[in-house]
Amino acid sequence: MSDPLQECIDAIKPLFGDDADKAAVLCGQFAPITVGDQLNDAVVGLNTLYLTSCGALVFVMHAGFAMLCAGAIRSKNTMNILLQTVMDAAVSAIAFYILGYGFAYGIGDKPNGFIGDALFGLARWAPKNVALNPAAGDGWQNWFFQWAFAATATTIPAGAVAERLNFNAYLIYSFFISAFVYPVVVHWVWASEGWLGMARYIGYSHLFRSGMIDFAGSGVVHMTGGLAGLAGCIMVGPRMGRFDSNGNPVEMPGHSATLVVLGTVLLWFGWYGFNPGSQLLINTAVSASVVGRAAVTTTLAGAAGCLSCLLTAFFRHKAWDLLAGCNGALVGFVSITASANVVEPWAALICGLMGGWVFDFVCWVFLKLRIDDPLSAAPMHAFCGAWGVFFAGLLAKRQYVCDSYGRDCDNTYYIPNGLLYGGDGRLLASQVIGIICIFAWVFGLMSILFAVMKVLKILRISAEEEQAGLDVSKHGGSAYNYDHGLGKPEKAQAMGL
Amino acid sequence: MSDPLQECIDAIKPLFGDDADKAAVLCGQFAPITVGDQLNDAVVGLNTLYLTSCGALVFVMHAGFAMLCAGAIRSKNTMNILLQTVMDAAVSAIAFYILGYGFAYGIGDKPNGFIGDALFGLARWAPKNVALNPAAGDGWQNWFFQWAFAATATTIPAGAVAERLNFNAYLIYSFFISAFVYPVVVHWVWASEGWLGMARYIGYSHLFRSGMIDFAGSGVVHMTGGLAGLAGCIMVGPRMGRFDSNGNPVEMPGHSATLVVLGTVLLWFGWYGFNPGSQLLINTAVSASVVGRAAVTTTLAGAAGCLSCLLTAFFRHKAWDLLAGCNGALVGFVSITASANVVEPWAALICGLMGGWVFDFVCWVFLKLRIDDPLSAAPMHAFCGAWGVFFAGLLAKRQYVCDSYGRDCDNTYYIPNGLLYGGDGRLLASQVIGIICIFAWVFGLMSILFAVMKVLKILRISAEEEQAGLDVSKHGGSAYNYDHGLGKPEKAQAMGL
Amino acid sequence: MSDPLQECIDAIKPLFGDDADKAAVLCGQFAPITVGDQLNDAVVGLNTLYLTSCGALVFVMHAGFAMLCAGAIRSKNTMNILLQTVMDAAVSAIAFYILGYGFAYGIGDKPNGFIGDALFGLARWAPKNVALNPAAGDGWQNWFFQWAFAATATTIPAGAVAERLNFNAYLIYSFFISAFVYPVVVHWVWASEGWLGMARYIGYSHLFRSGMIDFAGSGVVHMTGGLAGLAGCIMVGPRMGRFDSNGNPVEMPGHSATLVVLGTVLLWFGWYGFNPGSQLLINTAVSASVVGRAAVTTTLAGAAGCLSCLLTAFFRHKAWDLLAGCNGALVGFVSITASANVVEPWAALICGLMGGWVFDFVCWVFLKLRIDDPLSAAPMHAFCGAWGVFFAGLLAKRQYVCDSYGRDCDNTYYIPNGLLYGGDGRLLASQVIGIICIFAWVFGLMSILFAVMKVLKILRISAEEEQAGLDVSKHGGSAYNYDHGLGKPEKAQAMGL
Repeated sequence: MSDPLQECIDAIKPLFGDDADKAAVLCGQFAPITVGDQLNDAVVGLNTLYLTSCGALVFVMHAGFAMLCAGAIRSKNTMNILLQTVMDAAVSAIAFYILGYGFAYGIGDKPNGFIGDALFGLARWAPKNVALNPAAGDGWQNWFFQWAFAATATTIPAGAVAERLNFNAYLIYSFFISAFVYPVVVHWVWASEGWLGMARYIGYSHLFRSGMIDFAGSGVVHMTGGLAGLAGCIMVGPRMGRFDSNGNPVEMPGHSATLVVLGTVLLWFGWYGFNPGSQLLINTAVSASVVGRAAVTTTLAGAAGCLSCLLTAFFRHKAWDLLAGCNGALVGFVSITASANVVEPWAALICGLMGGWVFDFVCWVFLKLRIDDPLSAAPMHAFCGAWGVFFAGLLAKRQYVCDSYGRDCDNTYYIPNGLLYGGDGRLLASQVIGIICIFAWVFGLMSILFAVMKVLKILRISAEEEQAGLDVSKHGGSAYNYDHGLGKPEKAQAMGL
Repeated sequence: MSDPLQECIDAIKPLFGDDADKAAVLCGQFAPITVGDQLNDAVVGLNTLYLTSCGALVFVMHAGFAMLCAGAIRSKNTMNILLQTVMDAAVSAIAFYILGYGFAYGIGDKPNGFIGDALFGLARWAPKNVALNPAAGDGWQNWFFQWAFAATATTIPAGAVAERLNFNAYLIYSFFISAFVYPVVVHWVWASEGWLGMARYIGYSHLFRSGMIDFAGSGVVHMTGGLAGLAGCIMVGPRMGRFDSNGNPVEMPGHSATLVVLGTVLLWFGWYGFNPGSQLLINTAVSASVVGRAAVTTTLAGAAGCLSCLLTAFFRHKAWDLLAGCNGALVGFVSITASANVVEPWAALICGLMGGWVFDFVCWVFLKLRIDDPLSAAPMHAFCGAWGVFFAGLLAKRQYVCDSYGRDCDNTYYIPNGLLYGGDGRLLASQVIGIICIFAWVFGLMSILFAVMKVLKILRISAEEEQAGLDVSKHGGSAYNYDHGLGKPEKAQAMGL
Repeated sequence: MSDPLQECIDAIKPLFGDDADKAAVLCGQFAPITVGDQLNDAVVGLNTLYLTSCGALVFVMHAGFAMLCAGAIRSKNTMNILLQTVMDAAVSAIAFYILGYGFAYGIGDKPNGFIGDALFGLARWAPKNVALNPAAGDGWQNWFFQWAFAATATTIPAGAVAERLNFNAYLIYSFFISAFVYPVVVHWVWASEGWLGMARYIGYSHLFRSGMIDFAGSGVVHMTGGLAGLAGCIMVGPRMGRFDSNGNPVEMPGHSATLVVLGTVLLWFGWYGFNPGSQLLINTAVSASVVGRAAVTTTLAGAAGCLSCLLTAFFRHKAWDLLAGCNGALVGFVSITASANVVEPWAALICGLMGGWVFDFVCWVFLKLRIDDPLSAAPMHAFCGAWGVFFAGLLAKRQYVCDSYGRDCDNTYYIPNGLLYGGDGRLLASQVIGIICIFAWVFGLMSILFAVMKVLKILRISAEEEQAGLDVSKHGGSAYNYDHGLGKPEKAQAMGL
């Protein structure tokens, strides 16, 4: 056994004429240099725990999506949409492992702002490849955290194309989004080389020296998922009977309000990983304050969105509409996701409140245009996502930008500021350019994909299958088989049970 | 690039006659002073991660409450109670942001033990305002964590007044509790100026120099919520048909045992944030031991409560009653919440076991008095909450009190001790005074509020609405719409689907 | 108030001839020795937060099991299996507190490799008793984390014996597993004295100087639970009508696919505590990398298992089978649980993929042998658990073994290595011996227990009870009572509601 105190004394006593007593004074006063290494070690552990626990919370949003989607559609298509949610997690994991993470964050021989070119299959040993935060434990937890976001983007469109999409078409688009479409947007906005986003812990950004602020992905995740859904639900057309012969919408209520609420609250829960986790590091007081603030602004925006949609629905229909309240909360979260790190709490309330109006307006337009989005996934994720990105350009606060992006506000470097705080408009311009480019990239690519599948006749199920329901026609049965008068399984009946 | 080693050498070599080699010996031996700052930074991050992740767990209890309440009532009122749970989160967020947090923790110009007077709208920059733990990241995460508790207190009454309360009345009481009634109790018990509670990291407390121990809120949260529910369900009266003409109770079974269990287990899960999180800091070995012990005692009390109620029900009805088991677990958690930090594991077993008896007895009394509390929210939260507060006065262990409240047990200061450990009764007296005062404050104020609403005839729905169910009469439809013989939506049928 | 800087100066200035200015140079340069203590403190907090938050995630798997089991069986037995899941948590808590933890980890007067002999009732003060990680906060959180695993092992058999087991028999086996059968296996594999497992942070292991690798318990938890279920479902016999007179299986579909998916995704969520948490410490960069890697390999194995079973089912039945996809994901998790810390991501894909084949094959064999396991708990947990243990012997990577088990790969000590990486077979032999011994211990003991209960006629319910369903015959009612044509409660009908 080594004795650290004795080793210290032996090491420094020559400075004091080999007087061990004098050396012992210093050795008893000051911390050994190994403490610094131990601290660095512990910090890696702290940041890893932070990312893996937040990543797990982001993952649990899949339980939320599954329940929300199932509850909001008719029971005859329940197994179909549930399977899609499970497969979104599985397919995106494999796609993001093989290709997606590399396109998003890989820095290879030809670093560029458009797409990553390394780290495929987590081959981290290749030259020039560094993980996003190498200090944070060799990068494994970064893949996990980022995958959870990819899975979210992949699962959003399912609601928009529900109840009539071919399962093969689903498998194709799911892989395509998580392997390519989504990772490219990530590279633009979140990779340090990306041409579009505000870079972290670096003194400059490519676009106007400002770059777009999209903290946790109102644009990167929600617009991407929502626009893919929009392209899909336009191309696949409305469900049979959704609009009558005069083009007026016919209500198709979901089969379980309980599942809708369960899904909503689980999504709310998961958002506390989604937004607070997106600071990526928590080992400084400043980072920690961003994490805490993100939890606060997320809560308030969701609350405001919830009340906004609930009251609007009440004034329109004179009923306290549960679905409106749930959608409103989610709209609030989608809206604040871009700026949860950089706005004040009161601004978060405004963001959620107005997000509710954006949502209601776009839903109304969709019905006028006879676009059938069963879960309102596109109004919520694409349009409120865009609203959230835009909002960051209005009310991002300079000091908070410095806190979250590792800039020094006392420095002479250019620090972006929200327009309403007196910013010079570069930030808002970046936000608008981001919205336009994400729209063009995602909606363009996904429209082409869905159009090709339509031409190949693998996009939509047949009318007979749609009438019978996807569960019976494609998934071998019905989601529900209650005994005791709630629909006894036929074979069991035949057995006399 | 600066070279820290060279800087160190340059700084200290004058001490050794500019001999850089000698200076290098010390610089290689001792950690630079910046390590201390980095450690302080990392500690803030650690405590922030602790509070935000525990806060998220407390929030997920809303999924638990929603499912538990929905499952335990009749299906025709499902959407009503689900919407209330969602709105509890939203309304309490806004109320607690604008007013509640300030009444609870704000220290303004006139600090007093009754009510806080600053921090409204998170205006933390006001003079004399300090966050609860300023070291822990500027306080944002404290608001988040405390709001999750406020939302819990707000949502508890919903079960007691289920199936017949007017939704407007619900919105009013929900705001009132989270903005005023609950925060005042918090200030009494948990704020450092509060007149009632045991103060943390301070050598004295106001009441008998002991103060009341209520770690995570058997009294502050559960009694408050439960007593509000009690006032409500007395004032609103029993559901139609709950008691027959002889005053005997008529069973009104909930519509889904599955939802009851899902809710119970999610609440159990969330309690691991509720209790272990209530130490508020985790950066010392002592604090960490309190956090770990709270997880253990919580588990054991819930287990004991579960078995207690299950076995009692079995001996009474000769059936293994699922609802009894679920209620029993929750009773155990409510009971241990006051003392999870300061009791031994065997004491936690006793606490949960006897909590089950308290619950069963109060439920029996309620039926005798023809009080109709559909979820047994008042017996569970108000009375077992009071039991839990009382229990802390019996078996709080002196050493654990020091550990959790930052006292030095070797010091000469007065340290409270449970009566059965030989305490002098000051602690138990504090607990009893706490129970009485919380009862008077909450039951008094809420009774007045509900009475006023009754006079204004906005408290209860009409008999016709109650018979039809709240969902159809107030929320525009039914919670469940199964295809395939499980209740096809009428319009869809008309379309031939 | 003390002034640390002045104290430092006063302490060291004698070294410099009482020149305070010179002393101040050093005091301003180096961190005080107390920083090391503060760091040790914070590290305990970090590790405690890690274990308690991962423990909570492991606990939430009970919500997953409850929903999965309920959804996969017929509605008439729903309350029965739900109650079992709740009771598993409660019974195991008490059993593991009184006996289990002591048998698993207690080191008393006669330390031995077979069974622990101290720490009963958490009596940690007994001589020679040390907690697993004394540095990590006095061990409370270790009990909590380990109990969550015990509860998991206890709850797995419920699926195998569902729909016909006597509730008394359930209570007996549940206590027996968590108090004795499971803890002994834990002691073999995870306790530092265990004869079977690879020891952590110790230079040698008992078995072949290698020991068995079972990181999070493919063998310890899943084989134990699955084999108990296997013994039970063989001894209790198939459900009435499960096989027709020719011995061909008759489908008995579960009553809710939605619950199956909810359960699966919640289990997936909880597995991010189960596997990443099993490193037990996270305060070093190396440990943190193991935690992060475990999250990645867990994800990929689950994804591969999901696709494996889904595609196999599709090729066999030409339907996209939701249950197959869900089971497949769980199979992937069970399989990777032994080696999530020591394999590469691509190996995790292989592990999950082939796990799906193992599962499908064993399910097919079960039907041939007319073994009725309603949840396929034995094929999944016992056999894929064994596959996972075996797989670790093939593809454990030497460097990762060092990382996770605290060995020095540059040292001359023997470091186990997977056979396919050129290992010498000692590791694989350890794995095989582990599989055999766990099989013999668990299947042997549990078969005896179930046989005794069969002889005593307390094992299985009567044919009449089985036909009516356990809920009506044993639990006092039905799980579901929908109004509005979905099965109105009779008494409420009588009241005219």
